[in-house]
Amino acid sequence: MESKDTPPKQSVEEVEVRGHIIDSLLLPKILDRVTTSGGQFRIKDIAIGQQRNDPSYALIDIMADSPKVLDDILGAIRDHGAVPTDMQDARLEACDMEGAFPEGFYSSTNQQTEVRLDGDWIGVDDQEMDCGIVIDLEARAARCVPMSDVTPDMLIVVGHAGVRVFPHDQGRKGQSFEFMNSSVSTEKPKGVAIRKIAQEMVENRRAGKKTLVVGGPAIVHTGSGKHLCKLIRGGYVDRLFAGNALATHDIEHALFGTSLGVFLQQGDLAEAGHEHHIRAINRIRRAGGIANAVKDGVLQSGVMYECIKNDVDFLLAGSIRDDGPLPEVMTDAIGAQRAMRSAVRDVEFCLMIATTLHSVAVGNLLPARVRVVCVDINPSTVIKLGDRGSMQTVGLVTDVEPFLRVLVQEVETLEETLGAP
Amino acid sequence: MESKDTPPKQSVEEVEVRGHIIDSLLLPKILDRVTTSGGQFRIKDIAIGQQRNDPSYALIDIMADSPKVLDDILGAIRDHGAVPTDMQDARLEACDMEGAFPEGFYSSTNQQTEVRLDGDWIGVDDQEMDCGIVIDLEARAARCVPMSDVTPDMLIVVGHAGVRVFPHDQGRKGQSFEFMNSSVSTEKPKGVAIRKIAQEMVENRRAGKKTLVVGGPAIVHTGSGKHLCKLIRGGYVDRLFAGNALATHDIEHALFGTSLGVFLQQGDLAEAGHEHHIRAINRIRRAGGIANAVKDGVLQSGVMYECIKNDVDFLLAGSIRDDGPLPEVMTDAIGAQRAMRSAVRDVEFCLMIATTLHSVAVGNLLPARVRVVCVDINPSTVIKLGDRGSMQTVGLVTDVEPFLRVLVQEVETLEETLGAP
Amino acid sequence: MESKDTPPKQSVEEVEVRGHIIDSLLLPKILDRVTTSGGQFRIKDIAIGQQRNDPSYALIDIMADSPKVLDDILGAIRDHGAVPTDMQDARLEACDMEGAFPEGFYSSTNQQTEVRLDGDWIGVDDQEMDCGIVIDLEARAARCVPMSDVTPDMLIVVGHAGVRVFPHDQGRKGQSFEFMNSSVSTEKPKGVAIRKIAQEMVENRRAGKKTLVVGGPAIVHTGSGKHLCKLIRGGYVDRLFAGNALATHDIEHALFGTSLGVFLQQGDLAEAGHEHHIRAINRIRRAGGIANAVKDGVLQSGVMYECIKNDVDFLLAGSIRDDGPLPEVMTDAIGAQRAMRSAVRDVEFCLMIATTLHSVAVGNLLPARVRVVCVDINPSTVIKLGDRGSMQTVGLVTDVEPFLRVLVQEVETLEETLGAP
Amino acid sequence: MESKDTPPKQSVEEVEVRGHIIDSLLLPKILDRVTTSGGQFRIKDIAIGQQRNDPSYALIDIMADSPKVLDDILGAIRDHGAVPTDMQDARLEACDMEGAFPEGFYSSTNQQTEVRLDGDWIGVDDQEMDCGIVIDLEARAARCVPMSDVTPDMLIVVGHAGVRVFPHDQGRKGQSFEFMNSSVSTEKPKGVAIRKIAQEMVENRRAGKKTLVVGGPAIVHTGSGKHLCKLIRGGYVDRLFAGNALATHDIEHALFGTSLGVFLQQGDLAEAGHEHHIRAINRIRRAGGIANAVKDGVLQSGVMYECIKNDVDFLLAGSIRDDGPLPEVMTDAIGAQRAMRSAVRDVEFCLMIATTLHSVAVGNLLPARVRVVCVDINPSTVIKLGDRGSMQTVGLVTDVEPFLRVLVQEVETLEETLGAP
Repeated sequence: MESKDTPPKQSVEEVEVRGHIIDSLLLPKILDRVTTSGGQFRIKDIAIGQQRNDPSYALIDIMADSPKVLDDILGAIRDHGAVPTDMQDARLEACDMEGAFPEGFYSSTNQQTEVRLDGDWIGVDDQEMDCGIVIDLEARAARCVPMSDVTPDMLIVVGHAGVRVFPHDQGRKGQSFEFMNSSVSTEKPKGVAIRKIAQEMVENRRAGKKTLVVGGPAIVHTGSGKHLCKLIRGGYVDRLFAGNALATHDIEHALFGTSLGVFLQQGDLAEAGHEHHIRAINRIRRAGGIANAVKDGVLQSGVMYECIKNDVDFLLAGSIRDDGPLPEVMTDAIGAQRAMRSAVRDVEFCLMIATTLHSVAVGNLLPARVRVVCVDINPSTVIKLGDRGSMQTVGLVTDVEPFLRVLVQEVETLEETLGAP
Repeated sequence: MESKDTPPKQSVEEVEVRGHIIDSLLLPKILDRVTTSGGQFRIKDIAIGQQRNDPSYALIDIMADSPKVLDDILGAIRDHGAVPTDMQDARLEACDMEGAFPEGFYSSTNQQTEVRLDGDWIGVDDQEMDCGIVIDLEARAARCVPMSDVTPDMLIVVGHAGVRVFPHDQGRKGQSFEFMNSSVSTEKPKGVAIRKIAQEMVENRRAGKKTLVVGGPAIVHTGSGKHLCKLIRGGYVDRLFAGNALATHDIEHALFGTSLGVFLQQGDLAEAGHEHHIRAINRIRRAGGIANAVKDGVLQSGVMYECIKNDVDFLLAGSIRDDGPLPEVMTDAIGAQRAMRSAVRDVEFCLMIATTLHSVAVGNLLPARVRVVCVDINPSTVIKLGDRGSMQTVGLVTDVEPFLRVLVQEVETLEETLGAP
Repeated sequence: MESKDTPPKQSVEEVEVRGHIIDSLLLPKILDRVTTSGGQFRIKDIAIGQQRNDPSYALIDIMADSPKVLDDILGAIRDHGAVPTDMQDARLEACDMEGAFPEGFYSSTNQQTEVRLDGDWIGVDDQEMDCGIVIDLEARAARCVPMSDVTPDMLIVVGHAGVRVFPHDQGRKGQSFEFMNSSVSTEKPKGVAIRKIAQEMVENRRAGKKTLVVGGPAIVHTGSGKHLCKLIRGGYVDRLFAGNALATHDIEHALFGTSLGVFLQQGDLAEAGHEHHIRAINRIRRAGGIANAVKDGVLQSGVMYECIKNDVDFLLAGSIRDDGPLPEVMTDAIGAQRAMRSAVRDVEFCLMIATTLHSVAVGNLLPARVRVVCVDINPSTVIKLGDRGSMQTVGLVTDVEPFLRVLVQEVETLEETLGAP
Repeated sequence: MESKDTPPKQSVEEVEVRGHIIDSLLLPKILDRVTTSGGQFRIKDIAIGQQRNDPSYALIDIMADSPKVLDDILGAIRDHGAVPTDMQDARLEACDMEGAFPEGFYSSTNQQTEVRLDGDWIGVDDQEMDCGIVIDLEARAARCVPMSDVTPDMLIVVGHAGVRVFPHDQGRKGQSFEFMNSSVSTEKPKGVAIRKIAQEMVENRRAGKKTLVVGGPAIVHTGSGKHLCKLIRGGYVDRLFAGNALATHDIEHALFGTSLGVFLQQGDLAEAGHEHHIRAINRIRRAGGIANAVKDGVLQSGVMYECIKNDVDFLLAGSIRDDGPLPEVMTDAIGAQRAMRSAVRDVEFCLMIATTLHSVAVGNLLPARVRVVCVDINPSTVIKLGDRGSMQTVGLVTDVEPFLRVLVQEVETLEETLGAP
């Protein structure tokens, strides 16, 4: 990024921004970024849409005291859609080793991105944050690749030049959830929120789009497994991501009637109930896995049973706190990530319930366009998701059991109203 | 409390304990108290019930290095039911001023208590923690009196002698809730808990006993007002304690459709909606109060409307964060306490929903025998209640809206099953 | 607000906005408000400041389908500084009764406001949210008045015409706290935050400005009273607002070494320690109040003692959960509010520690220009403050004891560095 | 367990309990367990220690309606130390497959356990909950083995006969922490608690015992890394268990001055700072790992640097939310568990800071005798640890940064007071 003919020591670059730049707060964010980073700006042209849906346009000079500072600023505001008017091709560099990028690699966001090759803009596939962009020159294709999948032959984008980002326009699609976005307050009309989630799930299913549920063991502990089973049988769950704990306690409940030793029917403790979960795992291991246990009639109810019976892809990712684990659990974190990555490609709606670990893991993998609803009684899970860049997440601080119970009721009411698809 | 003929410097007192002293952990607590306070004990006789329901008995010598320490220990273990075998009458002292007890007054617990007068044990009325016990010698009656109600003519119990306490036997009555008592974990089967609360409310109503609901404004903000209205219309609420905020936002909702400016039907913000609550208060003040507003047709729905229509006693206690307030709000804290105190005398079941301030205030006033269920999405409210001595409280960490929705469903199902009373 | 000569059914009004309208997100907020309320806008002129500190200007036509909707929109966006170019005087109406405004009264915000009288703009004194504006025609003065202080002779502003609001420019002054504003995340560099709070407190004191501390009893329970005492002795606290509980447990600690019965030195429970707080209150009531108790030598240490000794105005507001209360406690909520209102007039910095009730109450009274820092281990307190309109609040989710300990250390370090003022 | 010659349908077994059975609530727990499980008891003999430190003894008949129920009860109360007087040898069964126990295997607790072989009681090594007990007949040795380590040749204990458990006597050793055990209240004197933790750490080091720190990334985000570095340099940390996140953000901070993109010195956001952590990982992967990066001078400060320099064993366990990960991260959950298991064998004190995942994982592995202190600003972490059986855990709900800062101060003060060891 060279400085032009300006007063000595000042570097300048002209950028432009298009879209709902005022409405969606993009322009304020960009200008704020420039000045807080020690840069300056001069708005050379601005055209603000006359109506809410009209796109706006701004042409801005960004100035800084050194090329280094200017480059940093340009890198930062590029994520908000500010693109230099003086276009260059993306700079590519071959990887020199397994499992690591070249220094200075372009680090991806979860926003729709394009890369400039020979003057043409190429869309980036498999959009995911914190990845590099690998270029296939022959196919003229670009895609995100995580660090651990790097091989020495890959061509990687380096620096910010020749990359442009299209921030997801949340205002348009997210309208219905807008009211919940402002904070993690617990003092919101919850019935409305749950009804809207039910609408999204019904619409998603009727449109033939995929829904992913990511769940923690509190679903079982709180006695909500049966509600999730209904959603599975109704066809609202295309994929289920969970850990050893959800599956174990679900199976414990199917075999012993307890979850963590608590009888879910009566709410009291079973004798030696703390052993039930470990006996449940042992029995499934002896049966050769969940699918076999269903086939052999060992496992006859519950969330995992319904997944098998209704052909729902489930993916159990391991963690260091797992007992057993169940044979289907993928114990290698990177292997599990790879499997999750390929399983989320066609997901359009994601419901995360009562799990911080799996929610953050999945949030890392999803592109910004996927609608995410995160439900947890603990506000910190939702806050963490937001802090880590999953901005498209709508958080709902509520209790799992009544949430899922009411969600099922709302879905059923909606289906009755709508009639057969 | 004089020391007997023991080695010099050692004070001794013989105490006895009766009841479910092992089962209910009383004996361990007493022995633990003695030793952690620097005292020693010698168990002289012990008879443990052979069966769970048989009462046990223990005769114990308590020893300490000084009469002062011994007296402190005896005071502490007396709250757990350990009574000196060497009985004395209660010592009485006349109050010497308005609004304060004599130094050394006996400070009451919320457990059933008796006072010894001329060799006879007299039951204490109006049992409440942190009060003094005033004696009417003529009527041979004793009752708890709060500090602010002390008048100079009163006779007050001083010291621990001649007072005995009967700790409430939680194990017996509380069985059904036992499983929830252990902790404030959110990972419990909530459906079971709500069903049991519904059972208690239905049983309480059918037995002709009084139920008190203590509620915070989150009931309205979360869109749960309509569920509470159903409970009121069904006759499950005999008293309602709340503050200006619940009543204001309930009326705001009735007049404008919003709560804190959020439309509860759609969940979106109203124009200038933050003004709605203050306009609602103004309108009720102009109408001369809630009751008048209902009579004049200004107020036609909501929790307060149902209270008026269904003759539910409501008590609105003021606080320093009140706007307005509504004319019915009692702005004097001590006056409101007095009104609450007399209104809880015949309450047998108390449901506290989403309010720390009012829950703790009511918890202070209730005797230990009253069943209390405290529902809040924030565990700290329940923890605080427990820390302040309201041990009979069962806490449920869950979300107000789905909780009340499901509670109403469970109550309706139960009523159908049971048929007309 | 009449419609002009536009196509039938459409009402139009021209408004203008000045200030940091892009930088501070005012323009986006205004445009968003217009369209979500069913209105439309046309930007007729816009001049955006070339530099960060240059003010911007926009001239906008607001259109709606009915005069009612238009008026609602104008009312809402006026709070964000959008003023009709077609200026009118404020409309005044005499109050017709005690304690209530006329219907349609202008409901104030906590932002700097001006009222137009005979073509001149008059500043509003005693700015406070949720009040009416009373006009003294003779003195040509305007001030906020709460509903409960209305008397029949007052002239009150009605409707939105002739009122303009200057939203507080947070970006300029608040710079140093900006990083904490984004969320209530607990995962922030706390040491930096505490150092900045120390800086503000030292600067405020050196500038001769007043600092208000609002505190809850957890200050005492957590053993932090001694840190607050240091701040008082150092002159960093000009006013203290608290409740009966903070004062009681502080005095309990001074008299018995315990807080809620827990010995703060060793952390273990005192014998019968639950009685200590009630005995402490009784003793102070017998002494005729805190000030007398200090004079008589009954009270010789602690927060309240230091307030008396260092001439710090303290204000104890009562609540329904108070035992006693202490004689200095103002038990009438409205009376306490009045006293608080007059005591905050000259406050420039406010530190709220571990109390939801008092924090929200004080937040309601403060104008938007006062810097507020709210410290609580429970994120919900900070969230609530924000939800209720106290937007100038900076929240810090941390633990009271180490917070105050480190704050004192930072203040002392700063004073050493700065030397004598 | 056969029934003896009792009235038909009733099964009886005589058990005995020894130890601090009243003081430590063992007897009440046992009797309660019996009756809630539908059994009955008859206390045939009881001898209660006259002094606090005297052991007690009880001989009890347990009765139930069926041998099955009786056996369940005996299994449950055995965990509390109730041992049948009619002693049998442990029943052994050979494993029939890889990675699973025989049905009916004895499931271990984390309490000290003995197994009866040919009439002799053999201590169980490697005590850990939720394992089986494998017997080496030749060596006459017993040890816990997790399910995933089972091989077909192993002899496993089956059923409860011939196994006895010695519940850890918390009262004795845990004295100093007793006050914190009661609840997760945030309203406790924190300074005292931190001083006591400092004492334990200093004593543990001076006694030559091992201390394990388990930490989450909030240590770095909150700017507390430097405090942990001081503890490491002082020799108070023998092992460090963490995940990829703590190490990554620590290294991000060392390389870029930021944590998750926030400058820890000033607390403001870095340009494109969200990329820093991924660039940090990339750089360490290019360097061939943390140790190499330290050797090459790439990494010159921070927690991981200090671990390398001070020969602290660190173990980084992977999870599905990891970026990268760093080369030292063990990505296989079961492999990481095995490594953790062998690294905790000689640990006597464990400090868990701000991580639910790793705390629960380590809690699962530790025997009950190890002192555990769990520090988190979120009460739910501590609650979860307790719910999962790690009862020896002392929870402290406080903020990481000031906690660690004050802990270091207290440790330094103590060391000065104590002088050179």
